[in-house]
Amino acid sequence: MSYKIPTIPSLAHHLEADLRAAIDNKTKPPGSLGQLETLALRLGLMQDTLAPALRRPASLVFAGDHGLADEGVSPFPKAVTVQMVLNFLAGGAAINVFARQHGLDLRVIDAAVAGPLPAHPQLLDRKIMPSGTRNALHGPAMTPDEVARCLAAGDQLAADLAAGGCNAVIFGEMGIGNTSAASLLMTALTGMPIETTTGRGSGHDPAGLARKRDILARVLARHPGATTPLAALAAFGGAEMAMMTGAMLGAAARRMVVLNDGFIVTASLLVAARLNPAVLDYTVFSHTSAEGAHDALVKHLGGQPLLALDLRLGEGTGAALAWPLLLSATRFLQEMATFETASVNKIHT
Amino acid sequence: MSYKIPTIPSLAHHLEADLRAAIDNKTKPPGSLGQLETLALRLGLMQDTLAPALRRPASLVFAGDHGLADEGVSPFPKAVTVQMVLNFLAGGAAINVFARQHGLDLRVIDAAVAGPLPAHPQLLDRKIMPSGTRNALHGPAMTPDEVARCLAAGDQLAADLAAGGCNAVIFGEMGIGNTSAASLLMTALTGMPIETTTGRGSGHDPAGLARKRDILARVLARHPGATTPLAALAAFGGAEMAMMTGAMLGAAARRMVVLNDGFIVTASLLVAARLNPAVLDYTVFSHTSAEGAHDALVKHLGGQPLLALDLRLGEGTGAALAWPLLLSATRFLQEMATFETASVNKIHT
Repeated sequence: MSYKIPTIPSLAHHLEADLRAAIDNKTKPPGSLGQLETLALRLGLMQDTLAPALRRPASLVFAGDHGLADEGVSPFPKAVTVQMVLNFLAGGAAINVFARQHGLDLRVIDAAVAGPLPAHPQLLDRKIMPSGTRNALHGPAMTPDEVARCLAAGDQLAADLAAGGCNAVIFGEMGIGNTSAASLLMTALTGMPIETTTGRGSGHDPAGLARKRDILARVLARHPGATTPLAALAAFGGAEMAMMTGAMLGAAARRMVVLNDGFIVTASLLVAARLNPAVLDYTVFSHTSAEGAHDALVKHLGGQPLLALDLRLGEGTGAALAWPLLLSATRFLQEMATFETASVNKIHT
Repeated sequence: MSYKIPTIPSLAHHLEADLRAAIDNKTKPPGSLGQLETLALRLGLMQDTLAPALRRPASLVFAGDHGLADEGVSPFPKAVTVQMVLNFLAGGAAINVFARQHGLDLRVIDAAVAGPLPAHPQLLDRKIMPSGTRNALHGPAMTPDEVARCLAAGDQLAADLAAGGCNAVIFGEMGIGNTSAASLLMTALTGMPIETTTGRGSGHDPAGLARKRDILARVLARHPGATTPLAALAAFGGAEMAMMTGAMLGAAARRMVVLNDGFIVTASLLVAARLNPAVLDYTVFSHTSAEGAHDALVKHLGGQPLLALDLRLGEGTGAALAWPLLLSATRFLQEMATFETASVNKIHT
């Protein structure tokens, strides 16, 4: 299996002055819509238009199991991955609620869930590893071929969405143990120590956190060469994260908005950015979470998060909650009157 | 005219344990929805129910002119108040866009706009001062009777909304010069110096800001006795702010959610909180703005803002942008599955 890192088009910088003028001509003091103005400008540059619009947004939850979960790195049992996928399909999880609220087309992508899942219109079977990834404490979580298949499957997902008219992707995930994979990827690719890159995850007590850090340090020592993006993905996984990385690069290559979420999604974005930094041109950082490692990683990537609600749930919930702000950015640019059309005096100058 | 400060009911603390249990039983790690969980709890306590719901939200823009604007405290000419009210009625302002996006029932309340306005279904004529407030540099902006009439009109607005089935009010305002009134009220009622309570407003340059501070210091010196809420309202105005204060107290008295906005709305809330501190039990702080004085005032009132998008527009735009987060808080509580109903394992304990 070969995977080719996609080319990502440059932003439409030739439109920047016209976009700024359009924003400043709206009936409001210049700059007074703050980050929404930045967002409107960026969306125009991404979509190469003075009238950016968001169409058929997809909320994707990438799911996979992690061999390392057998070491007790998560306070939840591994079975919860399957249980939560069934909960997504039944419509009872937090991401279901927010996707319904905002009209997001929710899909669950089975990248490596350890267990059979029923056929369901919202479930996309892209299972690369039927028993989840291997235990990274004992060897590579994935083979290079498995990594390449995940990345290629992610790219194909982006292609399918684009073909269906979608131009914005809300990224989310579910996988017991995947905060550990995220911490390992972050340490391996940024050099930040494991104390910085690990936190309480979904609910560790201090003793659990200390145990987790000890295990992760041993995993890192087991994989000294895992310092390139693809080697790190193979060493630490997860499959759902590699598939997200592929989908992010694929989305940016097609000028789609990549809406980032919490720590695990951001770790997948880190890998994507190391493969092609231009993915960040198409990324909107939805929130900074209560996980300190997430905040550090968002800063490392230069992101300016829209929300800071102390979320630490994953699933794409932070991205879904930020979604209406993206719509607001496009709508004020489309719908507001200008000083001229509304006959409003401009500021004294 | 007499105005009686309304009694505000206590929060339903008897429901607190049951609300917390309901929130913690949802299929997510405890606390992982962060501020949305706090919000869901608070809305239940406000509404005295385990199933809080938001109905017929109203977005109110209180408009009024300020005599002090003649001194050049704003970089915009006074005529912009009328012009912007006409823009609201034509649907072209930022608050129109966000109210349409979120299905908010937008009403403009003419408290003291200096100029005739056309009849319009979205315009409520509550004009107390047809030429705006008087110039506070030369005397009181309003008489005690005018203040009482504003407060009473605000209370009646809350009563009318409640009778129509509304249980949440998004507060907003428009009035050239009203950041000055807000700064004066803040200094008079908190003792913070004018340097802390004034900022760039809707677009001052440093020289304009220095001039504004000088004028405000002279206004303060003119009204040494204006240190109680009603005396400060009379001294500094504005009429639209006094009417907001009355509407906030009236809303809280009827167990309606008071959704706070930017600096001017928050200054009106400060006055309300000095008249009856229980108004804060029903207040949700939507955002902290790029105005430093706003942030200081939000902190002074103990608010935990939901957004920090560097907004400084007013009109209720920050509150309208935060609105979907309030809905998300009620919806996760209503719609999410519990660990039991979804057969998901709880955290190891």
